[in-house]
Amino acid sequence: MLSLAEIAQRTQGRVIGDELTCISGVGSLANARQGDLTYLSNQRYRGQLQATKAAAVLLAEQNVSNCPIPAIVVTNPQLAFAQIAVEFDKRERIETGIDSTARIDPTAQLGRNLRIGPNVNVGAHSVLSDGVELCANVCIGAFTSVGLDTSIRENVVVYHDVRIGARCTIHANTSIGVDGFGIVADDEGQLQEVPQVGRVQIGDDVLVGASVTIDRGTIDDTIIHDNVKIDDQVHIAHNCVVGAHSIMCGRSSLAGSVTLGEYCVLAGGVGIAGEGPVSIAGGVEIGAMTFVSRDITEPGRYSGSTLHTDNRTWRRNALRLNELDSMAKRLRRIEQICEKQERAE
Amino acid sequence: MLSLAEIAQRTQGRVIGDELTCISGVGSLANARQGDLTYLSNQRYRGQLQATKAAAVLLAEQNVSNCPIPAIVVTNPQLAFAQIAVEFDKRERIETGIDSTARIDPTAQLGRNLRIGPNVNVGAHSVLSDGVELCANVCIGAFTSVGLDTSIRENVVVYHDVRIGARCTIHANTSIGVDGFGIVADDEGQLQEVPQVGRVQIGDDVLVGASVTIDRGTIDDTIIHDNVKIDDQVHIAHNCVVGAHSIMCGRSSLAGSVTLGEYCVLAGGVGIAGEGPVSIAGGVEIGAMTFVSRDITEPGRYSGSTLHTDNRTWRRNALRLNELDSMAKRLRRIEQICEKQERAE
Amino acid sequence: MLSLAEIAQRTQGRVIGDELTCISGVGSLANARQGDLTYLSNQRYRGQLQATKAAAVLLAEQNVSNCPIPAIVVTNPQLAFAQIAVEFDKRERIETGIDSTARIDPTAQLGRNLRIGPNVNVGAHSVLSDGVELCANVCIGAFTSVGLDTSIRENVVVYHDVRIGARCTIHANTSIGVDGFGIVADDEGQLQEVPQVGRVQIGDDVLVGASVTIDRGTIDDTIIHDNVKIDDQVHIAHNCVVGAHSIMCGRSSLAGSVTLGEYCVLAGGVGIAGEGPVSIAGGVEIGAMTFVSRDITEPGRYSGSTLHTDNRTWRRNALRLNELDSMAKRLRRIEQICEKQERAE
Repeated sequence: MLSLAEIAQRTQGRVIGDELTCISGVGSLANARQGDLTYLSNQRYRGQLQATKAAAVLLAEQNVSNCPIPAIVVTNPQLAFAQIAVEFDKRERIETGIDSTARIDPTAQLGRNLRIGPNVNVGAHSVLSDGVELCANVCIGAFTSVGLDTSIRENVVVYHDVRIGARCTIHANTSIGVDGFGIVADDEGQLQEVPQVGRVQIGDDVLVGASVTIDRGTIDDTIIHDNVKIDDQVHIAHNCVVGAHSIMCGRSSLAGSVTLGEYCVLAGGVGIAGEGPVSIAGGVEIGAMTFVSRDITEPGRYSGSTLHTDNRTWRRNALRLNELDSMAKRLRRIEQICEKQERAE
Repeated sequence: MLSLAEIAQRTQGRVIGDELTCISGVGSLANARQGDLTYLSNQRYRGQLQATKAAAVLLAEQNVSNCPIPAIVVTNPQLAFAQIAVEFDKRERIETGIDSTARIDPTAQLGRNLRIGPNVNVGAHSVLSDGVELCANVCIGAFTSVGLDTSIRENVVVYHDVRIGARCTIHANTSIGVDGFGIVADDEGQLQEVPQVGRVQIGDDVLVGASVTIDRGTIDDTIIHDNVKIDDQVHIAHNCVVGAHSIMCGRSSLAGSVTLGEYCVLAGGVGIAGEGPVSIAGGVEIGAMTFVSRDITEPGRYSGSTLHTDNRTWRRNALRLNELDSMAKRLRRIEQICEKQERAE
Repeated sequence: MLSLAEIAQRTQGRVIGDELTCISGVGSLANARQGDLTYLSNQRYRGQLQATKAAAVLLAEQNVSNCPIPAIVVTNPQLAFAQIAVEFDKRERIETGIDSTARIDPTAQLGRNLRIGPNVNVGAHSVLSDGVELCANVCIGAFTSVGLDTSIRENVVVYHDVRIGARCTIHANTSIGVDGFGIVADDEGQLQEVPQVGRVQIGDDVLVGASVTIDRGTIDDTIIHDNVKIDDQVHIAHNCVVGAHSIMCGRSSLAGSVTLGEYCVLAGGVGIAGEGPVSIAGGVEIGAMTFVSRDITEPGRYSGSTLHTDNRTWRRNALRLNELDSMAKRLRRIEQICEKQERAE
């Protein structure tokens, strides 16, 4: 339970209405129940404010007028909501201590206040800093280190010789440090795997979603810098570098040796893959399901996807795509004829 | 072993040939062995009927003539085959009972005839209904419930506060209830994760493939309605709603706040993602690898992918795509010149 | 530690410089440290040779001149590097023996020199050949066999009745033998799952990445032939056949009943899915994020993706795509007018 006064203090906000109003949960404008705190961030939902059952709302100055319930005025309602919602998160960290079924190599260096769940495996010469949480069935390879207060969820596999920073969260069923996909044909055409002896380095405050795959470098390391946020089912191949504060949405992927700058945003399903290394400047945003095969050197927004339409229209036009070059040339020829005629007149 | 008479009874079919013919397995038309039951559903394969080694075939009335082997005539051969093939499925549920290595929180509510495998973890206040199967290494979070006879395969992770209905199957390495991907920048540009306090609700008779990720809602719930069928590597983000009887094929995905109607079919690799919420009407089918960024309000078939061609043709035409708008304008200009000339004549 | 003489012998190379130079590790041209062996394979990096700190370099005859450090001349520097780098791979196989927490069914047939980690499950009537490595939490279903020296990494799930050949590597969190996605509507429109009673057969020397899903066949088997190399997050649906020596890069996928020939290469994100079975000839290479919906009968390189551009250009042109057919017809009409005029002149 939090009072509006307490919430205003934590969010640096200003209460309009009864400061003693008590908040017992959080809810959306449309579905909040009695006692819930809600927030208004997107103007699209402003109309829902009149009918909400919430006890109070976080909102920006511009939306204060006609607000029918107590409000806390803040500069960034979504951020303020994030700061408060964490109080009502039902998920509990696992208990402090090392479960009796966990298998920790005697050479591992263990910090204090570890939370190690059932059937966890920790390899030789690994390092777990203070407050690390390893949920059930997590496997940590040899020579791998996990930083302060990092939480690794159930069934995650971290291979050997990987460095993970402080305050990271890594969600279920993710694999980090997997061998990069380096294949070379021998003289008989038999495919051979190139040993992958580089590492993965992950900075501080990095979020990694579920079923993500991050491959180790072939020789040099794969590097994820501080404060990068990675959604579910993202794939990052060997020797990629992801700049600080970048966001990779669900199912986006980087082929081998892609460098992404700082403050980039890849929307869902984006794929970056070139014949050689590809480099993306800082501050680049790429639209959903776009394929990028060449460097992008300037910040800005880029896209390349095609839009859906009804099947009949789609089929008719999709087939014409392969005539486009011919059409362009024929159009040019006719323009020349027209120009000639115009000159002749 | 089943006789044709028994099979006909179960499939509401009519036997042509010896009713006592015994079936000991199932096989395709091309590869059936002696004693196998096969089926003919797609006219494309009708020619294979003459040479099949199967002991009998399920087929529709229209294909009865010239059938060289005993047949069972049914209205839907594929459905009838599904009803019989289940008898010959080699996979066995794990044994009834709770494995000694399973870790069940004492506050969990346990139904009868549970099948709980090795190293399973079940959190506090969770509910397992009668007949639930949890295979090895499955993790069930606190406050999560699993319905009657639902089967959850090896290494699946279900987070806290998730509801799963009756008779569902969830395949290996899938993660359900993962934190939605909500990121907000604070005043210093540092990315912060928005706590995800909503739940996931999954209805009855839902199939979920392997390595699927289903995120919990940010505040409201992510909802998968009854009888939805989800293939491997599908991603469903926070606050999505999937209508009953919808099908999501392999690697299709929904970004945050997408609503899919009833009886929809997303082919492989489809991605639905808009700037805000996107809503897809019931009865919509979307072709493989199509990107949908806007609402679809009418039932029907939609696509948006581009077709492959040889690399040389592709390169020539793909580069012209960015001239398309200019070409359209130039074409219009020439049309106007032509129209003027025609009027002048 | 290896001397250049030893390295030359193993790689069938020729030393230029001091044969007794000792190698203690491997590094890239740019980041090698003292004592490292490096290699030059791509001309793009030739300039880095002058400044490298490596102790020696593997290179081709054409790059020998002006090499500032001892060199080993080989025909394929990348292949030679692969042969040597394996010596410096820090990853260790788990110890020979069967961990006390592993659960092996008494009917399983066990070879010699097995390496079975903690919490491994092996089902009834399964077969593990000599030298098989099963890392922590691996689950092997009933009637499944694993060939000589194959290594299966942490948290992999192999369902029942799957055959895996010799010398394969299967990376973390992968699922093999998952039920194919066969759905049929019954008379009331309720979706039913078709039992999947086929198997998965995987040949020798196959590499399977992390979070891969390979579905079992519906009736016949899904088959991966010898020496196929599969990257992370690849999806292979029921009844696919992948020809020997083919390469499937990250996130590529095959829908049900796709046949891929020998020596094919699918770049990242490629999807192959047709209305019925699709067949791809041997020796076909498909560019990244291409969608293939029809047979390809000739070897060669194919693509179908669209290229990215800045958002403004993209939006303008993407919207025109649905006018393409109309544009083609209007262009043809104008050409006819022009031809008529030319004939008239």
